[in-house]
Amino acid sequence: MAERLFNFSAGPATLPRSVLEEVQRDLMDLPDVGASALEVSHRSPWFTSVIDEALANLRTLLDIPDTHSVVFCQGGATQQFSMAAMNFLRGTGLTAEFVVTGSWGAKAVNEALKEGDVRVAWSGEDDGFVRVPTQIELSETLTRRAAYVHITSNETIHGVEFPGDPWMPEGVPLFSDMSSDFLSRPVSLDRYALVYAGAQKNAGPAGVTVAIVRNDLLERIPEGLPAMLDYRTFIEHGSLYNTPPVFAIYVLMLVTRRLRDVVGGLEAQLEVNRVKSGLLYDVIDGSEGFYRGHAEQTSRSLMNVTWRLPVEELERTFAAEAAAAGMVELKGHRSVGGIRASVYNSMPLAGARTLADFMRAFAAAHA
Amino acid sequence: MAERLFNFSAGPATLPRSVLEEVQRDLMDLPDVGASALEVSHRSPWFTSVIDEALANLRTLLDIPDTHSVVFCQGGATQQFSMAAMNFLRGTGLTAEFVVTGSWGAKAVNEALKEGDVRVAWSGEDDGFVRVPTQIELSETLTRRAAYVHITSNETIHGVEFPGDPWMPEGVPLFSDMSSDFLSRPVSLDRYALVYAGAQKNAGPAGVTVAIVRNDLLERIPEGLPAMLDYRTFIEHGSLYNTPPVFAIYVLMLVTRRLRDVVGGLEAQLEVNRVKSGLLYDVIDGSEGFYRGHAEQTSRSLMNVTWRLPVEELERTFAAEAAAAGMVELKGHRSVGGIRASVYNSMPLAGARTLADFMRAFAAAHA
Repeated sequence: MAERLFNFSAGPATLPRSVLEEVQRDLMDLPDVGASALEVSHRSPWFTSVIDEALANLRTLLDIPDTHSVVFCQGGATQQFSMAAMNFLRGTGLTAEFVVTGSWGAKAVNEALKEGDVRVAWSGEDDGFVRVPTQIELSETLTRRAAYVHITSNETIHGVEFPGDPWMPEGVPLFSDMSSDFLSRPVSLDRYALVYAGAQKNAGPAGVTVAIVRNDLLERIPEGLPAMLDYRTFIEHGSLYNTPPVFAIYVLMLVTRRLRDVVGGLEAQLEVNRVKSGLLYDVIDGSEGFYRGHAEQTSRSLMNVTWRLPVEELERTFAAEAAAAGMVELKGHRSVGGIRASVYNSMPLAGARTLADFMRAFAAAHA
Repeated sequence: MAERLFNFSAGPATLPRSVLEEVQRDLMDLPDVGASALEVSHRSPWFTSVIDEALANLRTLLDIPDTHSVVFCQGGATQQFSMAAMNFLRGTGLTAEFVVTGSWGAKAVNEALKEGDVRVAWSGEDDGFVRVPTQIELSETLTRRAAYVHITSNETIHGVEFPGDPWMPEGVPLFSDMSSDFLSRPVSLDRYALVYAGAQKNAGPAGVTVAIVRNDLLERIPEGLPAMLDYRTFIEHGSLYNTPPVFAIYVLMLVTRRLRDVVGGLEAQLEVNRVKSGLLYDVIDGSEGFYRGHAEQTSRSLMNVTWRLPVEELERTFAAEAAAAGMVELKGHRSVGGIRASVYNSMPLAGARTLADFMRAFAAAHA
């Protein structure tokens, strides 16, 4: 077997080695099942236990209150952009207020505009998406009349993350696209009315989307929505109204099992994530301007560390030499350039250490 | 490793052993990639070659004309029920005409009703869904004014399948939900305006949906659809507008590669499928009424063979004894009862033979 590389992709992203080993071991034939997880019926006892455990793991890890339902959808955050607005904005006569801290938030706005009134309450676009708003800024712009307020807790392209659960006006439902920092830290879910996340950063492979909905919101859903775009369909049928992405949910179950049993929960995971991103931010901050971080320090992402080098030519050299040294997918998103190192939950500490060492050596050689 | 069983599930369904072996071999680390197919970026050169080959394999196998686009969606046929109607019925002022030959067609009607005018042109419901309509029946009911005519080429629950491409009035776009017989036989795609199929019967694992759209239809799509429910989004971005279900598309690519290179195409696959289902129908027909097939002979499915036994007690015994003998998932759908043996492309001939032998022995013992 060839050596596994350190994969700094922004998503799909690296998975725990032990999970991949278990998937590989049982790929032809699950124990006591006689078929592959790629083949088994979603109505089988095996899958019932898989999806039940996946839901239980999420509830345990995130301490999800009984007031909230958890479902597995498809189509990623982009479909949730529409689904959230179709379910909770369309027909309300209210306005949805968006806090836009990067490209994904802007895309969410575009989809919501198709369903009802939308107001961009705060946007970091004019400053190049370098920070999240302060509580004072939020209190000056958000209203208590909003259908909901939508945030993107972590913006992968710019590497901008809310440092915790943001302040909200009392009584306003808070929606958060947590695709890229889901399960990376504890969250006070009782403060959120809707959370959704594509699995492919921290929770599993691409192909499954987790949504967590506060049940009292369901009465707002207008009649006549397509079945697959109505949260009630998923809640009422336990995410089995039609065939779900069985294999992706199976891998998500294994990832969350490991997060619970081996990592020890989200507080422990947060500690590791702070160390990993800290290793990289320390090099940036200590590089005397050779590396320039994109985000302001208070809004720095623990998931996606983004920075520039003095000239683009050096950025290309950096990415190429890093790849040659076994660290891949470091090129920044095409819309912003630079370098991006995604250090999600499953990136080993050794990956961040190796990259930090490489960064120091590269700076010493080229500064 | 425990013995793999013969899995007669209606879907997700059995996959070729050689495909599973390749998936297992490369699960930790794809050759020359350094990461698992569960981890690799959808923008990577590896996945570009995977999705390109998947599309090319489908084009070759189905002889898809250049007038049609092929895309990978999510959400299964159920989401396509809505998407088809949102794209091609909503706002047209026309009526969509449905030919309903089973439960899935009826569900498609329900979703289309949310988007515009619908007429059930023909339904087999009063007869218990035992056959497809004749050409004469179709010619008496279908009109040339329809936005489109929608059929379900194979109904998994009742085991009713159109024996070939159905007659249509000239100029009327024909839509077909081919979820459960996609890639099981050649199809004259130039006769269809929209074909869609969840992959989890013949084409791959659950979690990816293939849609084939005739390009001249795209101008009908109303503005303002959610991005993930607009076929143009998928066509214009090569199914990569957001993160696709990478792993499911990878397995679909391997399944279609084998179908092209090892099986030798859809004519060859059809021959095998005729033999496999024929083995079971022959036992039913020769059982002197002990086994009663559900579908009329002219509408019998090559994919899902459905039948009853004299009493329900015997059906339970049959399924239990078959399972003990290594043949699982033979219980009929809960809505119709009886026995259902799904013999999709990847069910080995040995599986059908073993089941036919078991059926004969069971009948001899209990008739």
